[in-house]
Amino acid sequence: MQELKERLQQAWQNLKAQEAEGARAQEIYAQNVWPLLLELWRKEPQVYPLRETFEVSIHTLGTSPEATTLAALGLGADEVYVLHTPESRRYLSQLQQDLGREVYPIEIDKSDVTRLYRAVGEQVRKHPGKKIALDLTSGTKAMSAGMAAAGYFLQRVHPSLRVAYVDNDAFDPALRKPVAGTEKLILLPNPHEVLGDLDEHLAQEFYGAREFSKAADRYQALRRKTGQGHFEVYAALCEMYQRWYALDFEGASSNAQRLLNFLTQDAYRNHPLNRHAQRLKEQKEGLKAIVALLQSKNFSEQKGILWLTATLLQLGDERRERQPVSAALYYYRAFELLLQHRLAVRGRSDDEPNLSPEEQQHLRQALSVWLGKPPEQIRPVQKLGLLESIALLCYLGDPALSRFSDSDLRGYQGMLQSRNKSLLIHGLEVSKKGDVERLQQFAHRLYQTTREEAGLAVSVEPVELV
Amino acid sequence: MQELKERLQQAWQNLKAQEAEGARAQEIYAQNVWPLLLELWRKEPQVYPLRETFEVSIHTLGTSPEATTLAALGLGADEVYVLHTPESRRYLSQLQQDLGREVYPIEIDKSDVTRLYRAVGEQVRKHPGKKIALDLTSGTKAMSAGMAAAGYFLQRVHPSLRVAYVDNDAFDPALRKPVAGTEKLILLPNPHEVLGDLDEHLAQEFYGAREFSKAADRYQALRRKTGQGHFEVYAALCEMYQRWYALDFEGASSNAQRLLNFLTQDAYRNHPLNRHAQRLKEQKEGLKAIVALLQSKNFSEQKGILWLTATLLQLGDERRERQPVSAALYYYRAFELLLQHRLAVRGRSDDEPNLSPEEQQHLRQALSVWLGKPPEQIRPVQKLGLLESIALLCYLGDPALSRFSDSDLRGYQGMLQSRNKSLLIHGLEVSKKGDVERLQQFAHRLYQTTREEAGLAVSVEPVELV
Repeated sequence: MQELKERLQQAWQNLKAQEAEGARAQEIYAQNVWPLLLELWRKEPQVYPLRETFEVSIHTLGTSPEATTLAALGLGADEVYVLHTPESRRYLSQLQQDLGREVYPIEIDKSDVTRLYRAVGEQVRKHPGKKIALDLTSGTKAMSAGMAAAGYFLQRVHPSLRVAYVDNDAFDPALRKPVAGTEKLILLPNPHEVLGDLDEHLAQEFYGAREFSKAADRYQALRRKTGQGHFEVYAALCEMYQRWYALDFEGASSNAQRLLNFLTQDAYRNHPLNRHAQRLKEQKEGLKAIVALLQSKNFSEQKGILWLTATLLQLGDERRERQPVSAALYYYRAFELLLQHRLAVRGRSDDEPNLSPEEQQHLRQALSVWLGKPPEQIRPVQKLGLLESIALLCYLGDPALSRFSDSDLRGYQGMLQSRNKSLLIHGLEVSKKGDVERLQQFAHRLYQTTREEAGLAVSVEPVELV
Repeated sequence: MQELKERLQQAWQNLKAQEAEGARAQEIYAQNVWPLLLELWRKEPQVYPLRETFEVSIHTLGTSPEATTLAALGLGADEVYVLHTPESRRYLSQLQQDLGREVYPIEIDKSDVTRLYRAVGEQVRKHPGKKIALDLTSGTKAMSAGMAAAGYFLQRVHPSLRVAYVDNDAFDPALRKPVAGTEKLILLPNPHEVLGDLDEHLAQEFYGAREFSKAADRYQALRRKTGQGHFEVYAALCEMYQRWYALDFEGASSNAQRLLNFLTQDAYRNHPLNRHAQRLKEQKEGLKAIVALLQSKNFSEQKGILWLTATLLQLGDERRERQPVSAALYYYRAFELLLQHRLAVRGRSDDEPNLSPEEQQHLRQALSVWLGKPPEQIRPVQKLGLLESIALLCYLGDPALSRFSDSDLRGYQGMLQSRNKSLLIHGLEVSKKGDVERLQQFAHRLYQTTREEAGLAVSVEPVELV
């Protein structure tokens, strides 16, 4: 082999010594240099970093068929497809002769990136499970561009696919050929994979769609794939929101702490998420207040109630358009939570209301008006549902509830009473859009009043990623 | 202008007539042809299809600086960045002279796709909101490949970005130059956009993540972008599942009909979804049965109950790992629905159980055992909760319920009674993972028995897309 390489070098030096130009130089190259180069690659293709064996290779073919020959020898596939132009068709027979095998020709247009891209996609899809290489060495730049775009993208679905290219260590500008013997086939890395930008794009799309757990998975994969720590910070953020919106407040709270620990590290001072550090700190405090509330089960804890209600309202708002049945459930619960809170700060509870005879009298009177039924049809109140809670709060002089008039409540009663008939509770009713909207307004109104009374800023919305 | 073009043609013909080769030919070209070509492009760049003005252009530079000069003139940007290799650095001054302006050089490696890709990304990000063009005409194929991959991907985030390329209508192989005057700058289409493959990939990812509404939006966008009708069929599928899993069964049912209409059209006979035509037809029938159940509110309707329960179980299963609170809600409802059904086929109802004194006696006895409380602490049963329903069904000899032993039910009672204390119902309890798993098993077991009794096949899982 060493002897063959020396003969090749000698042939090249002879060619250069003759100071031939143009057609004459090409002729000498074809007669004296190329046969040796071909022999070398037939015996031992020069592949960087290591030789891999492919089952299918797909090549672009322009006016340098030698490069395609070397690439095909280096890739060593059983099936060889060649994308040629009308102009380069004439090189096919030489190519087959040099390769010592048939190739399958596919005619394309030298400037039509899209058609080439589609042709490559079709061939790749025709060979599922096979190890395929795309060689973009020959042909116009538009052809190489289409080949690269196709290959780098198809690699997501066919991870064993590779993009290859015959490079050289020295190029002779006068002959416009690589210095013979310096050619090498390179399996090009996929920049999407190296930098992870396509996965990051997907993660961002999932985040935007509030699919926080899918986004977190992507960021974790990016961390592993690229070795870049800043992706882990994003993963911590996604995990926090994932748990938060899954109502796992303890988990979310510890993720929030982890996230803030990251952001205060020197390594991540310039992390884009640090723009939201203040907001994230508030959210961490909010989560802590919810965790405390769930532990104490004390409905009078203002901060926990407000953050929890805001969370439920947010979950409702996200679902209102596309999942009204589920949205209604969150709105009902948010509304009820606020009533439970307002009862609790007045020392009362919906579960054990301990009604005085006057209160009992008042409640039945109010229900009779709102439901439009004679008082004798209203049974004695034992536990407080939504309407009964409102009635008691009104009687106790709660300013937020006193705002609603009897006619408001006559309008709302059907919706407030139908909670138990919902498909997700005990019945087969599917919430209507109009009802869900009324419920949303009602719940948001009561929330705003409670929040203003408390003078607290609450913002549960996920921060912007970019 | 016409006169200038004629002079250029003449100069090219003179060059060819001299039958010069190699360095001599290049020299004549540089002296006689290039100045005219440059003058032509300075006055009127040849751009296909139409000239657009850019604020920033980024170019690869190899050993053909003329192509870069033409591209920069054609793109007409104020800021010009040139990615050159150590070898092509020497062409920078010629390039600046021909352009009559300074360019900003960035050194890269001719074979390092990733570094080039990263350099392009950095430059693009440094110019937010500006109209940017990437020119891949000059440089090695690896450089062009990296440029194309970067440009086509970055276009998603910077939609006004364009990839450009100096093509020609005729290439002279002997001189290895385009025939002078046939050069034209082409703004290359983005194959990802033309074929929509990247969007389709995203749609598939969303579908896999059960984000059906996001998937549907993507497919609708693909339909508009590519004009391909088969994307609309996918959109109909996604919309069906989106509505189904949002419990909008009427909407889902009409989507199912629309989908099956598509699939029976001649145009879509070969649509990949036709592999699932039988399953989709069954799902359409299942949806119809649910719609009928919700209308009649007759809990004894077997088929509707089974499909509805299977839907709720599926929603629970999807959420079990990551959203246990929400999963528990679906499992509870599925379980209760089966109890309501089994009571209904025996002519009973949980809401108005009309218990005989013997039944009342038996129920209180059973509850006393399961709850571990003396019978006198068990209040008379008015409506049937989960435990009471089980007790009555056992008394009525329901074979499915008789399978559960007293000790089973002693184990389950806490979980069955805690439904009302859930954060999403009336309390502040967050379902524990172990409880959710027990609930899942319990509900699935009762569902399987009911399904086997009915001898019905029910498959609510979304079909595979590919």
